[in-house]
Amino acid sequence: MTAAPEPDRHGWHKKIRSVPDFPKPGIDFKDITPLLGDGVVLAEVIEAISVPYRGLVDKVCGIEARGFILAAPVACSLQAGFVPIRKHGKLPYKSEAASYELEYSEAILEIHSDAVGAGERVLIVDDVLATGGTARAAADLVRRLGGNVVAVVCLIELEFLKGRSKLEGIELATHIRY
Amino acid sequence: MTAAPEPDRHGWHKKIRSVPDFPKPGIDFKDITPLLGDGVVLAEVIEAISVPYRGLVDKVCGIEARGFILAAPVACSLQAGFVPIRKHGKLPYKSEAASYELEYSEAILEIHSDAVGAGERVLIVDDVLATGGTARAAADLVRRLGGNVVAVVCLIELEFLKGRSKLEGIELATHIRY
Repeated sequence: MTAAPEPDRHGWHKKIRSVPDFPKPGIDFKDITPLLGDGVVLAEVIEAISVPYRGLVDKVCGIEARGFILAAPVACSLQAGFVPIRKHGKLPYKSEAASYELEYSEAILEIHSDAVGAGERVLIVDDVLATGGTARAAADLVRRLGGNVVAVVCLIELEFLKGRSKLEGIELATHIRY
Repeated sequence: MTAAPEPDRHGWHKKIRSVPDFPKPGIDFKDITPLLGDGVVLAEVIEAISVPYRGLVDKVCGIEARGFILAAPVACSLQAGFVPIRKHGKLPYKSEAASYELEYSEAILEIHSDAVGAGERVLIVDDVLATGGTARAAADLVRRLGGNVVAVVCLIELEFLKGRSKLEGIELATHIRY
């Protein structure tokens, strides 16, 4: 199920730059910095991400590092608290950890153990849904703390990587698809 | 010169947790995650950072990674674009780099070469002003692209590290001081 309005109705994809061979040969990287740098478009994007969840969310989780850039304004727009989900070793306080698969290795995401209370309604926001591994790990962390995952929202979905299949049973909204 | 209102007038410091010996022995780390996690306080903080610069800023630069969490909502509040200043190798497009000193080494910050236009008015936002090295490097990068640094704003200033001395000639606003 997708709660988002029709994706890319504003032509936001024109503000996304494809950078070939970054971060390594063969990857066509979707660079959202031109979109972020346009104050009018940035405000539209934050509003579009936020509006389906107004009054329905207690916390907004952002995934390090680009996820922070979208998730923090969404938290403010929804008058919710912001919770960082960070890479291993970056959070200073007692944390929960979840590992997820990368192409040839594993990585670890962490959340502060007191960041989400039992029954709190949580929105998870990231810039790109690729293989779905980080979004899945983030949802698992929130649930382990007793939070209810209202939805995962990603600005971009790379459909050919089938990340959506890793999030069965979780509402997923994406706004621009490749 | 400080454009900020009287610091910590709302008792925000009660929402900042001291974590001893993080990231290494002897450091008393100021953890802002309880403040970020309180939606009411987060909104107050973003408003207090933003209000002196309303109508005066074209771009807001955030410094990776915690700086993104404050800078992006400030950009939205000011209807300005957001520009990430990142660690070496993270930005996908043509970039400018500046090095700065750490205690026993050097680190590099980068900005996209097209992120700030000549004459644009830029606010630089970070969570903590410590030795001032990152803020100084960020200001140097913005100026190298032709931008005018309107001010550097940090939520927290660690006064005993004298970072303020590295920013002579730049307006600096801080809201909570230790």
